Amino acid sequence: MGSLPTESLSVEEHQQQQVEMDDTSRTERARWLLNSPDPPSIWHELAGSIREAFFPRNKLSSSSRVKQTWRRSAFSFLRGLFPILNWGRNYKASKFKSDLMAGLTLASLSIPQSIGYANLAKLDPQYGLYTSVIPPLIYALMGSSREIAIGPVAVVSMLLSALMQNVQDPAADPVAYRKLVFTVTFFAGVFQSVFGLFRLGFLVDFLSHAAIVGFMAGAAIVIGLQQLKGLLGISHFTNKTDVVSVLGSVFSSLHHSLHNLTIPSLLCDFLAVLVSSEFRPRLFLPYLPLNCKVYLYLTKADKHGVKIVKHIKGGLNPSSAHQLQLTGPHLGQTAKIGLISAVVALTVREAIAVGRSFASIKGYHLDGNKEMVAMGFMNIAGSLTSCYVATGSFSRTAVNFSAGCQTVVSNIVMAITVLLSLELFTSLLYYTPIAILASIILSALPGLIDINEAINIYKVDKLDFLACIGAFLGVLFASVEIGLLAAVTISFAKILLNAVRPGIELQGRLPRTDTYGDISQFPMAIKTPGILTIRINSALFCFANANFIRERIMRWVTEEQDELEETTKRTIQAVIIDMSNLMNIDTSGILVLEELHKKLASNGIELVMASPRWQVIHKLKSAKLLDRIGKGCVYLSVAEAMEACLASKFAALSNC
Amino acid sequence: MGSLPTESLSVEEHQQQQVEMDDTSRTERARWLLNSPDPPSIWHELAGSIREAFFPRNKLSSSSRVKQTWRRSAFSFLRGLFPILNWGRNYKASKFKSDLMAGLTLASLSIPQSIGYANLAKLDPQYGLYTSVIPPLIYALMGSSREIAIGPVAVVSMLLSALMQNVQDPAADPVAYRKLVFTVTFFAGVFQSVFGLFRLGFLVDFLSHAAIVGFMAGAAIVIGLQQLKGLLGISHFTNKTDVVSVLGSVFSSLHHSLHNLTIPSLLCDFLAVLVSSEFRPRLFLPYLPLNCKVYLYLTKADKHGVKIVKHIKGGLNPSSAHQLQLTGPHLGQTAKIGLISAVVALTVREAIAVGRSFASIKGYHLDGNKEMVAMGFMNIAGSLTSCYVATGSFSRTAVNFSAGCQTVVSNIVMAITVLLSLELFTSLLYYTPIAILASIILSALPGLIDINEAINIYKVDKLDFLACIGAFLGVLFASVEIGLLAAVTISFAKILLNAVRPGIELQGRLPRTDTYGDISQFPMAIKTPGILTIRINSALFCFANANFIRERIMRWVTEEQDELEETTKRTIQAVIIDMSNLMNIDTSGILVLEELHKKLASNGIELVMASPRWQVIHKLKSAKLLDRIGKGCVYLSVAEAMEACLASKFAALSNC
Repeated sequence: MGSLPTESLSVEEHQQQQVEMDDTSRTERARWLLNSPDPPSIWHELAGSIREAFFPRNKLSSSSRVKQTWRRSAFSFLRGLFPILNWGRNYKASKFKSDLMAGLTLASLSIPQSIGYANLAKLDPQYGLYTSVIPPLIYALMGSSREIAIGPVAVVSMLLSALMQNVQDPAADPVAYRKLVFTVTFFAGVFQSVFGLFRLGFLVDFLSHAAIVGFMAGAAIVIGLQQLKGLLGISHFTNKTDVVSVLGSVFSSLHHSLHNLTIPSLLCDFLAVLVSSEFRPRLFLPYLPLNCKVYLYLTKADKHGVKIVKHIKGGLNPSSAHQLQLTGPHLGQTAKIGLISAVVALTVREAIAVGRSFASIKGYHLDGNKEMVAMGFMNIAGSLTSCYVATGSFSRTAVNFSAGCQTVVSNIVMAITVLLSLELFTSLLYYTPIAILASIILSALPGLIDINEAINIYKVDKLDFLACIGAFLGVLFASVEIGLLAAVTISFAKILLNAVRPGIELQGRLPRTDTYGDISQFPMAIKTPGILTIRINSALFCFANANFIRERIMRWVTEEQDELEETTKRTIQAVIIDMSNLMNIDTSGILVLEELHKKLASNGIELVMASPRWQVIHKLKSAKLLDRIGKGCVYLSVAEAMEACLASKFAALSNC
Repeated sequence: MGSLPTESLSVEEHQQQQVEMDDTSRTERARWLLNSPDPPSIWHELAGSIREAFFPRNKLSSSSRVKQTWRRSAFSFLRGLFPILNWGRNYKASKFKSDLMAGLTLASLSIPQSIGYANLAKLDPQYGLYTSVIPPLIYALMGSSREIAIGPVAVVSMLLSALMQNVQDPAADPVAYRKLVFTVTFFAGVFQSVFGLFRLGFLVDFLSHAAIVGFMAGAAIVIGLQQLKGLLGISHFTNKTDVVSVLGSVFSSLHHSLHNLTIPSLLCDFLAVLVSSEFRPRLFLPYLPLNCKVYLYLTKADKHGVKIVKHIKGGLNPSSAHQLQLTGPHLGQTAKIGLISAVVALTVREAIAVGRSFASIKGYHLDGNKEMVAMGFMNIAGSLTSCYVATGSFSRTAVNFSAGCQTVVSNIVMAITVLLSLELFTSLLYYTPIAILASIILSALPGLIDINEAINIYKVDKLDFLACIGAFLGVLFASVEIGLLAAVTISFAKILLNAVRPGIELQGRLPRTDTYGDISQFPMAIKTPGILTIRINSALFCFANANFIRERIMRWVTEEQDELEETTKRTIQAVIIDMSNLMNIDTSGILVLEELHKKLASNGIELVMASPRWQVIHKLKSAKLLDRIGKGCVYLSVAEAMEACLASKFAALSNC
């Protein structure tokens, strides 16, 4: 109610301003534009963004005028860093019950997956299990997502081994390879937390949604093909990841592996296919491999050519702090790989958040930057406790969600369960056949391939689809890096294309309004003969598009001229350029604008600028262009510019 | 007069629409938006741009409804290709007189310059002279600029030798080097004509004006330093072009060259300094070196350590068609260098056109594409007649202009003069001291360094200046390629930055208008409490900026919410997003928009979209988002959206 007066006032104003609409007020309003304050200089903006990066809370609190004592602010800072302090206080037993179930389900799935993914990352099985212990615990303290399931992930594991092979061959020296992996994990964590702390989240945005969809699908297929090694028990397998070489090595070693196939291994493959085909996240899942383990144990099938996991080193995560290679020749490469895997890990997480959008389902807000900090710290901690890069897992997150988890406690339960099984049951895992692991990994892959989304992307945006397909084919036929590169390149080529070939449209007045619209969009729009209204639909009037804009405008002018001369013997009087979209103009743009003005003036055509923004006004002033063109050619809106032109036209007509 | 009725009508309409402004008409107008025709698909646009590329004239003529017979059109096509057919018919003797004088002046300058530039390009002197013969003649037929002086140019010569050294050392095998240079010239010509024919002019725009200024200045200084070799008569000189190594080699060989200095060479240097210091384009100029030649001839000063040009092979341009290396190992590199030098050559020309803007002084139109075709053909022809890459020369163009040329005939005169001197007077050039050549080159350099423009750029646009400085320092301290690369990179980084961090502003209604403006630009703007009006100032709502925009909007919403709760106990009712600037939205953008809608809706805030363009509408439709958000949330303009919100608000208030 308090603001009713203002509204009634504004209504009055409406009528009022609809009455008085004469030259004086028009020029007065134009003066608003010309005398608009100087925009913040680039230094101001830089300083502002830095301040925002470091003290975001202060800014917010100052705006929301909450006087905080230092203790309160400290506590709120802590709560910001550790969300568990928020929800932990009112955490109920009922919630814990469902979290417990969800956690056990997670564990039942994550134990075999972790072993398989470690295999994918060319590490010993236990490192996968380690990675399912520490990172989830850290995330549980710092993360704010409730459904996400943290741990090793197929895509990142594959990416790691694919990138690391160029640095260190795991087969030649596993220890050195492992050390480098830990180092990469450390760097990944550092990068992630830096992104979060300095609000560089947009670096993750560089992979467009479409690109992620394509990349994920390609990675899934590549990973699936890698599993053929396990399923067929191939000993000599290619190190490359692209389809061609993988299938090549499969077929080359197929006869040999077929020769190897024995009844037990066939049975085992049969079981594997069974698992992967009718695999659903249920608690009894792990028993299926277990049965087959018992069977294997009895028949000692490994003697008959069934590849099995063999010994898994049990016990707690050993410290790996001393293994980090923060000096030495590979530092640069490991840092680079760390950066890539940091971005990809965040992207996967992002993809979960966006694709499934659990957060928006449950309707609570995820702070991207805080999430990145949490992921970063959990990976740093992981790198010190012999884990490799962890992030949110597609399949397990879905399981966690459908198993009805309430809070991130399910991750804690899962971590503890994995820890216990590391302590006690590693001997049980001895006889787990590689084939079963492969099948379990395979069963997790379809979730990564989102064909409907791809179709949807194709429907909505062809260029987006191009990025999607580029990433997909790149990963499939070249390599993971190439795929990523293709995706990023295409995405940005799109932006540049848009800047180089901006939209520029002829406008007409929409009937019974003061609004002007694109004549091709609004067929009912009315063109005023003798006055061209042109709108530049680009944020920048710069070197990349200035010439294009000039030529397009000049062509329209000539065409309009010809038409006018055919119909009436009159000429174009003015060209109104609607600059409301221009965020900025650079020196090339100013040069072109001046050239345009000269050319039009030489044909007796007036150049009128409508609603330029303050940055543009400021630059036109500092380039002395306004003095040369004349300040009278700037108006607040197209409508007012049009009225001014019509008025002067009437004057001219009445004179002659 | 013919269109007076419509205007009087439009005035009526003004009053009319100011009277009736009720819901029905508003929704009706909103329907214009929703039912706006589908925008041209990407295939249509592609086809359109291709058609425009190949048959530009047809399009124009069809638009300007001129029925042309095939003969007329063929002739107009010819005239388009050879502008000489236009002005040649009414070319008068009076014009020829001034063209003759200008041409001779040009020749007097271009003979020593050509020799010097050939030296810079690490070619024998005569090739520079050849390059001053054929290309100008071709350009005279095809080019439409009247003042530009065609021939070898310092920057391009330096660029060529700098780039070619990586492929083939000119000292080791001059013949092979020369062949490669011709090949590069051929490729440059091909690229240029392709740019012109397919209207790819924007490829040249990739170097912003600021970058060109910086690059030119850097190149000028580098070239100047190269001349120290000639001035000091240093025998062993570095192949690198960066300041450090050049000065290094100068100082290292200084004592040796000082030891070499004799009376004649000192005198010669003195003359050289004289030339370069008081050099002005006058006809008597060539006599000065001539005197010194005579003096040298008498004293046989070359025996006393004065470096001279020695023998220049006379005669017409020999054919070099058989020397083009269109196969073999270096093809890729030569093509690449050809592309670079093609772009740089066009850039130099562009720089002349823009910087001096002769065309706009004399007020005739230069068609960039036609110009590129002309340049391309002249370089192709050149590559077949043992010329290297030619383009418009800064210094000589200025001379040509100040010497009062009327048409491009001055180029023809110049070419013929050079041809004659090649035929007859090459023996006269025998004793031309290198020092004199060096000094003449030096005297041409200051024109390339435009400090005022640099200062101007700094004043207008800091980021532009960064590109300028980047190019400058890159050329100076690294190499020519690095300089170019730096310039292009910085320029595009600017565009990307603008796309990643778009402008997004809170708007308020300007008093006594229906116009809404940035509240920070217009302090007098009136905010309507409870309704946020936000404008996205970016052409793209895409993966690169979607998250940024969402977070910014959400922050503003929370801040406004807090303020409202402090002052009045009411909450935000609606958020109006002005989409008039969005040219396009991609899948990431749509996802974010939906997320935004969900979040706002969960807080009981309505999301209203004002004046989205047809592309956006089309995509929102095809993504089924409009159905989910509700078609009622789209309005033609911010003003109408605001009225709708206020109306519903009043309704709500009157209900409670």
